[in-house]
Amino acid sequence: MIEKIADTLARVRREKPLIHQMTNYVSMNDCANITLAVGASPVMTQDAQEAEEMVAHARALVINLGTLESHNVAAMLAAGRRAKELSIPIVLDPVGVGATRYRTETAQRMLQELRPDIIRCNMSELKVLCGLNAPVKGVDSVADAEGGEAAARMLAGKTGGVIAVTGQTDIVTDGQCVVRIENGHTLLTRVTGTGCMTTALTACFAACNVPLIGAVAGVLCMGISGELAAETLRDREGPGMFKVRLMDAAYLLNHAIIELYAKVEIEGEWA
Amino acid sequence: MIEKIADTLARVRREKPLIHQMTNYVSMNDCANITLAVGASPVMTQDAQEAEEMVAHARALVINLGTLESHNVAAMLAAGRRAKELSIPIVLDPVGVGATRYRTETAQRMLQELRPDIIRCNMSELKVLCGLNAPVKGVDSVADAEGGEAAARMLAGKTGGVIAVTGQTDIVTDGQCVVRIENGHTLLTRVTGTGCMTTALTACFAACNVPLIGAVAGVLCMGISGELAAETLRDREGPGMFKVRLMDAAYLLNHAIIELYAKVEIEGEWA
Amino acid sequence: MIEKIADTLARVRREKPLIHQMTNYVSMNDCANITLAVGASPVMTQDAQEAEEMVAHARALVINLGTLESHNVAAMLAAGRRAKELSIPIVLDPVGVGATRYRTETAQRMLQELRPDIIRCNMSELKVLCGLNAPVKGVDSVADAEGGEAAARMLAGKTGGVIAVTGQTDIVTDGQCVVRIENGHTLLTRVTGTGCMTTALTACFAACNVPLIGAVAGVLCMGISGELAAETLRDREGPGMFKVRLMDAAYLLNHAIIELYAKVEIEGEWA
Repeated sequence: MIEKIADTLARVRREKPLIHQMTNYVSMNDCANITLAVGASPVMTQDAQEAEEMVAHARALVINLGTLESHNVAAMLAAGRRAKELSIPIVLDPVGVGATRYRTETAQRMLQELRPDIIRCNMSELKVLCGLNAPVKGVDSVADAEGGEAAARMLAGKTGGVIAVTGQTDIVTDGQCVVRIENGHTLLTRVTGTGCMTTALTACFAACNVPLIGAVAGVLCMGISGELAAETLRDREGPGMFKVRLMDAAYLLNHAIIELYAKVEIEGEWA
Repeated sequence: MIEKIADTLARVRREKPLIHQMTNYVSMNDCANITLAVGASPVMTQDAQEAEEMVAHARALVINLGTLESHNVAAMLAAGRRAKELSIPIVLDPVGVGATRYRTETAQRMLQELRPDIIRCNMSELKVLCGLNAPVKGVDSVADAEGGEAAARMLAGKTGGVIAVTGQTDIVTDGQCVVRIENGHTLLTRVTGTGCMTTALTACFAACNVPLIGAVAGVLCMGISGELAAETLRDREGPGMFKVRLMDAAYLLNHAIIELYAKVEIEGEWA
Repeated sequence: MIEKIADTLARVRREKPLIHQMTNYVSMNDCANITLAVGASPVMTQDAQEAEEMVAHARALVINLGTLESHNVAAMLAAGRRAKELSIPIVLDPVGVGATRYRTETAQRMLQELRPDIIRCNMSELKVLCGLNAPVKGVDSVADAEGGEAAARMLAGKTGGVIAVTGQTDIVTDGQCVVRIENGHTLLTRVTGTGCMTTALTACFAACNVPLIGAVAGVLCMGISGELAAETLRDREGPGMFKVRLMDAAYLLNHAIIELYAKVEIEGEWA
């Protein structure tokens, strides 16, 4: 399994896939930078006049609802449909779904109309997407992990895609196989956009392999990068320096590091 | 007084209040990060379809005019009105007011329609809001401090809110009590968005205490964080590293540090 | 020549020119920060209601198409026309031109209607603007350097402005004089927005000198800053720390450093 992840990373670096990201204003810069750090090539554009044409050049499409704006929804859907036609994998990040009706309806629409190849979300977002009662607090997860695995499997079954839920334990599933990842660091919750960056990484890897491996690779590489970043911190350093080191770590990842750090458990048949 | 500031910081960290920020594209990421660094939870969204609903979940609302866009003004006003109804404190940052007629008119409209609980601005912006003749240069302050305290008191009287003017000496007043803060560092003027970040901090603290204490705490914590950040700089380090350390400093703030660093003078009766 | 560059830098620091930047969401924060780092004063605003009025206070205007949005094009053109009337230099960054029809048409329209004083672009973008067949990959350059100098001269002749093409060797030309700059570092390609930041620097210098010197100074200072930033990197540091150091380097630039590092070759008569 580690072999497959490392091979996918090597492919990303060799092929430098173009990743079209229709994403939020808060973490756009960080998402572009982590995409470059891992070896892929980001393009962030969302205007209706060019989104469909741009996605046709890309090898994966990210749709992230973080700062959802009504004038962008149509462009997201159009780009998504075009990606579908061209078999370009779509990664949906339903940021803050459940926080407002508009966000929930838009996310549900994306699910139904686009059937994303991967949904990368947190536990609150997963439960809301599954129609379960879950507490929501802006864009943060406040739902507990209980029942999360079943919900993820259920959503995977419903959408036909891979679900990647990040949290204390990350869960990635295609509905059959379940992968649990125990990497990561609490400082990842003290930097904005780390969820979005995980989504971006997932898209980079999904450009070079099947969705299940792409999603596991993205989530795992983010978790390991978080651990590496935290290890380098010295006295009086906090989330500011952690974020800097996170980019460095994503850049420095390699087979040996992944093998040394990965804490992954697989249930069911792996891709 | 230091006691109250430190208690408010402790409350922010314990309660992790959700802070809804309708803010500019330039410093949005930094504002989210300093909000997380100090212990609160940011949500940045500005679409008219969800702003009113989102603010109802929040414990403070920031309205920042840095990259004012006409399609967002209605949403800002709607969210502000909803915040008013729900007694959620509003912090207005009238970035660059005076630089253009549109900016001045919009800021004045916010003042009249929303009567913000706190206005956080620089000296040029304060004087423009008071209708005084003041030089303006984009979003930078070029007005001198003379008459600033009287202007701040006057504006506080007019709006019924707290005025927090940052500069060489920071002034915070509710029209009666005047607090002067001498913390800070010149490198704060060489990093974009430090004013906006001060506004964000002010909102974090105002979520957990009355506006006067919230504003003093926000301004003071930014000033002290600037000093702490500058202290860690080594040879050949400048504003890039300073910004990283600023986030770390906000994260590391505590009662002892505030007590050691605070240079605060109070005139009149403190809240 | 170095003398003129260093003098222009000193003027930027003394005069702190206001630089109006209508730019993309991805690198907006970095562009503002490098503008401050080098000593100028950024203002980023793009709404049609104030762009024309804002530019009148500025000493240079940047138009950057990185995240082109149809509702901003009219404001960019209006601000550009106003800048023209007031003899405020315009620097155009046609990010990703060629990637979509909309981007190409918009860039061509900017060229024709505004005749920018400086165009700062990469090799793919240059060739597309010249109507040559060139490979395009999102916003990255994948065209080779062959024929680049002739293309740059041609475009300079056609627009009457200065062309600054960055790449392995940077080329700056007004159609007569050609300046080749060999500074820079490969990590500049692993951080998003370094092209945009070069454009921002170019505008800072063009505010204080003629376009040819402004463009050479901007490109050269970015290249040298990249080298300085790379020199400070330690083991296990990558693009995250490099970006931090890049800002520090731009802040620390001075006559002696420029003289020591500059690798510049001039062909033809220098301004």
